[in-house]
Amino acid sequence: MDYQGVIEEVYQEVQQENQRGKVATYIPELASVNPDQFGIALVDLQGRVYGVGDYQLPFSIQSISKVLTLTMVFPKFDPQLWSRVNVEPSGNPFNSIAQLEYEKGIPRNPFINAGALVITDALCSKFDNPTQQISEFINEIAGKNCVAINPAVKSSEQNHAERNTALAYFLKSYKNFDNPINQVLDVYFSHCAMEMSCVDLAKSFSFLANDGYSLFAQREILSESHARRINAIMLTCGFYDEAGEFAYRVGLPGKSGVGGGVAAVMPHKFSIAVWSPELNEKGNSVKSIRALELLTDKLSFSLF
Amino acid sequence: MDYQGVIEEVYQEVQQENQRGKVATYIPELASVNPDQFGIALVDLQGRVYGVGDYQLPFSIQSISKVLTLTMVFPKFDPQLWSRVNVEPSGNPFNSIAQLEYEKGIPRNPFINAGALVITDALCSKFDNPTQQISEFINEIAGKNCVAINPAVKSSEQNHAERNTALAYFLKSYKNFDNPINQVLDVYFSHCAMEMSCVDLAKSFSFLANDGYSLFAQREILSESHARRINAIMLTCGFYDEAGEFAYRVGLPGKSGVGGGVAAVMPHKFSIAVWSPELNEKGNSVKSIRALELLTDKLSFSLF
Amino acid sequence: MDYQGVIEEVYQEVQQENQRGKVATYIPELASVNPDQFGIALVDLQGRVYGVGDYQLPFSIQSISKVLTLTMVFPKFDPQLWSRVNVEPSGNPFNSIAQLEYEKGIPRNPFINAGALVITDALCSKFDNPTQQISEFINEIAGKNCVAINPAVKSSEQNHAERNTALAYFLKSYKNFDNPINQVLDVYFSHCAMEMSCVDLAKSFSFLANDGYSLFAQREILSESHARRINAIMLTCGFYDEAGEFAYRVGLPGKSGVGGGVAAVMPHKFSIAVWSPELNEKGNSVKSIRALELLTDKLSFSLF
Amino acid sequence: MDYQGVIEEVYQEVQQENQRGKVATYIPELASVNPDQFGIALVDLQGRVYGVGDYQLPFSIQSISKVLTLTMVFPKFDPQLWSRVNVEPSGNPFNSIAQLEYEKGIPRNPFINAGALVITDALCSKFDNPTQQISEFINEIAGKNCVAINPAVKSSEQNHAERNTALAYFLKSYKNFDNPINQVLDVYFSHCAMEMSCVDLAKSFSFLANDGYSLFAQREILSESHARRINAIMLTCGFYDEAGEFAYRVGLPGKSGVGGGVAAVMPHKFSIAVWSPELNEKGNSVKSIRALELLTDKLSFSLF
Repeated sequence: MDYQGVIEEVYQEVQQENQRGKVATYIPELASVNPDQFGIALVDLQGRVYGVGDYQLPFSIQSISKVLTLTMVFPKFDPQLWSRVNVEPSGNPFNSIAQLEYEKGIPRNPFINAGALVITDALCSKFDNPTQQISEFINEIAGKNCVAINPAVKSSEQNHAERNTALAYFLKSYKNFDNPINQVLDVYFSHCAMEMSCVDLAKSFSFLANDGYSLFAQREILSESHARRINAIMLTCGFYDEAGEFAYRVGLPGKSGVGGGVAAVMPHKFSIAVWSPELNEKGNSVKSIRALELLTDKLSFSLF
Repeated sequence: MDYQGVIEEVYQEVQQENQRGKVATYIPELASVNPDQFGIALVDLQGRVYGVGDYQLPFSIQSISKVLTLTMVFPKFDPQLWSRVNVEPSGNPFNSIAQLEYEKGIPRNPFINAGALVITDALCSKFDNPTQQISEFINEIAGKNCVAINPAVKSSEQNHAERNTALAYFLKSYKNFDNPINQVLDVYFSHCAMEMSCVDLAKSFSFLANDGYSLFAQREILSESHARRINAIMLTCGFYDEAGEFAYRVGLPGKSGVGGGVAAVMPHKFSIAVWSPELNEKGNSVKSIRALELLTDKLSFSLF
Repeated sequence: MDYQGVIEEVYQEVQQENQRGKVATYIPELASVNPDQFGIALVDLQGRVYGVGDYQLPFSIQSISKVLTLTMVFPKFDPQLWSRVNVEPSGNPFNSIAQLEYEKGIPRNPFINAGALVITDALCSKFDNPTQQISEFINEIAGKNCVAINPAVKSSEQNHAERNTALAYFLKSYKNFDNPINQVLDVYFSHCAMEMSCVDLAKSFSFLANDGYSLFAQREILSESHARRINAIMLTCGFYDEAGEFAYRVGLPGKSGVGGGVAAVMPHKFSIAVWSPELNEKGNSVKSIRALELLTDKLSFSLF
Repeated sequence: MDYQGVIEEVYQEVQQENQRGKVATYIPELASVNPDQFGIALVDLQGRVYGVGDYQLPFSIQSISKVLTLTMVFPKFDPQLWSRVNVEPSGNPFNSIAQLEYEKGIPRNPFINAGALVITDALCSKFDNPTQQISEFINEIAGKNCVAINPAVKSSEQNHAERNTALAYFLKSYKNFDNPINQVLDVYFSHCAMEMSCVDLAKSFSFLANDGYSLFAQREILSESHARRINAIMLTCGFYDEAGEFAYRVGLPGKSGVGGGVAAVMPHKFSIAVWSPELNEKGNSVKSIRALELLTDKLSFSLF
């Protein structure tokens, strides 16, 4: 398969269409990013890397990190974890607190903010030095030291933390939060403030395309069954309130972040990361999603 | 009018019917209260006091204090206050956070928890020593030093503060909170932990039956217009999600607390406080509401 | 009391302020009404009439009729009626179906559409010829033949009936609807399409200011207790999702309609009807509410 | 692949576990079904049939029919169809009307009741004799005359039609309904009342495992792209408010019905139908889901 040719074709078409959105503005570091940046990196199951555009530039991975913290926590808590967080699509904005009230403190899934806070809380219960260990874990599965926490981003997130803090206290009121809120939020903002390039991100997701085995870490990261399940959750819940649309148009398990990145996998074929900062009104990158749609059309690859 | 005779009659009938509910259990101090206590105190516009049963025993006034903090804040902020909090009944439980999300951080009224937190926040902006000044204010309008903050209750409230803390952070995320959250919560829990007897509570509400003038403080506490408006808010919002039922059955402006107390006024006639710890499933005192219903029937007094 | 002088003063001030809103547009008959019409009629407990402006012109009373159908039904069903409909403010738009789902088919109060449909259904169970009997009843309490059903309005309502039909079927799915849906809707649209002038409307509400006795029918329409309770429901639920605001600003029990009318009572003093077609965004007449606010200020009359 | 051996193994294990639920009771025809019936039929892409248990007995397919009506409508309306109905999971019960109000008359997806009514309405716009043509279509893709409409089931559905009628009127109030409501409901209840066996159902879903081409009809039923998209919608929305759980545990696109049936596909491998009448509290067949979970474990087949 000529992956390099295909992603270059996709890159050209997306640039020509030039669909626009709006860069995230809730913190200045994201608001000031160059909106024209665009990169694609694809990694196949032999570990070969294909890239185009700004695929080597680090960007703020934001919520994409939630897949990797879930990966760290999942084998340590399964199946008890699923009494603390569900695996259902939310049908609501990612930071909604109303649904959490209706469902009595059990977040709908691990990728909405409330669910990701529960995952980070669980992580803090099992790791002594969680922020550092998240970085180490991602470096391991990406095959090199590539993770940097942007201190300005982290600090800005902390200065806009009221809503996440409210979610954490609300979870605690339902006894679904074990560790000190400040500590968990610090870890949470740290992993959301991580920066990686498309190529490193695609490598770090490679094990999810490979039944749980990482070529780069050279070990099984998750059992085959656990890897599949994370893919299932990405497919049904990975794109906020647009998961159905992404499954419909693209048909790959994936996860987006407000930095404009999307990481996705075609099981038994490849992992891929795309990045372009401008977002649609649901908070997903316009060009990244369009690129993945064109790619699956061209490759005639989708889950379905 | 033979108020003493009427309240004694009411007292006897309520005791005979002996309708039961459940004492509040979210903090041990309320859970362990003697559920059989029951008292009524009525104060007319000449300042005469009528009492029956446990009307001189102090109890935890809880949310009833919200009327008095609103009274302190109202003249200092009117009308700007009403851009921060509405005056509509909520149609939801008192501590709901969902509605606050749907209405973008503007609480439905000053008596649900979110609204009362906004009022306490506003109070902290205008008073240097808010907790002490609330006590002093209530002592003044009750005509004697009668307010004590129960330290065990306050401490318990603080140990169960997650939900109120979540509300405060959520308000702050909508920029509807000005002061440090810990400081405001400390004041909030202080006034909720105040203890007063029925007789002192009835005296402290007397100005609301008297167009804003307090016989006990011997001064105008609120303008006639402001006093009326607080009565209007009590009528439409004073009993959580049971305000309509109370208006229908009793027809007086009033405010309940989870300690089992209810303070109410018949404008231009009297103020009244009733206390019995057992609550119905909406969180209002079973016997206190029944007593007020019988009283208005017997007196043929209601707003309507 | 110089009621005539006061309402003329109010009329002048409201006309000078000239606050504007938007005429209801969901049916052409309401959309094409002259928006500048404005009238006030007040009837005291001696039956004296005071009027100013367009107070003798008939207009579409719309939801104001719901108070009168409730009056017909109330004594025939009390207290069983209150297992079919509550008396709580809704906190939602008047035609919301969502709340009806959350509360399992029991409408929040008799004045939102779902609740009024239950009342009309109950009415159809007790009256053989309901539409005609509603007209006769209103004519009786207004003291003259004054009610006309506008056939064009009724027909337009029926052509825009989908939402009310949905509410009726939804109520039926909860077994809270006894009669054929088409029949009940026909009666419902008939009473909403009735036209009356301010003066006749004020007369027809007079019994609610008079402990249930109608000077014009010369008989007790409701017991004192029932009359009070309808006033209580009007106060807490009479203005859609603006009931608290009306209680706060005006402090009288009342009911509005999308035709721009408001009928209200000051118990033991007077009944009043005001009409001006332009509505605020909550569906209540801008000038009518302003007029009532000024009136209660000038008279220093309010419930509170 | 020894499909026959695997499904027999699965059958035995599920019978031994013997997890129980509750048969649907909203109509007598479903309530009186023998709860112990259980069958599995699998059809591979060579058209070979494998079966075990009651796989040849007809049962009420109910909502499974919604996939097939969507199939008939999809190519005739794409992409305009998607302005009338979304493809997002609902996060709510299948017959909820509240969400339809919040989303202004656009159902969340074609498989909740409101969405399926829109699809049936669209079908009525394009087919002259819709009920008969649905039967003919299913017979064609199943390769034989196998569809029977159970008149008692249809009649019972019509006698419990209030909620669906409410949904239809509500859709019409948002102008998202073109044909007469009674006509569309008649077609809707007809296809929900169809009876088929597991084997015929598995055959009729075969084209969805085969990029749109039906071995039994010997023609392309849908384009590859359309077939994939229906699979995507089944995966994200096929199991009411349990779609995420099914994706997580089973990982196949599928659709359940309250008759206890589930039809699913493993793209490029097989289609499968399972039937057992007892449902969990979300309305999905307990044994059918468990069978599919065991099957994908044993086959190591899932999308992911």
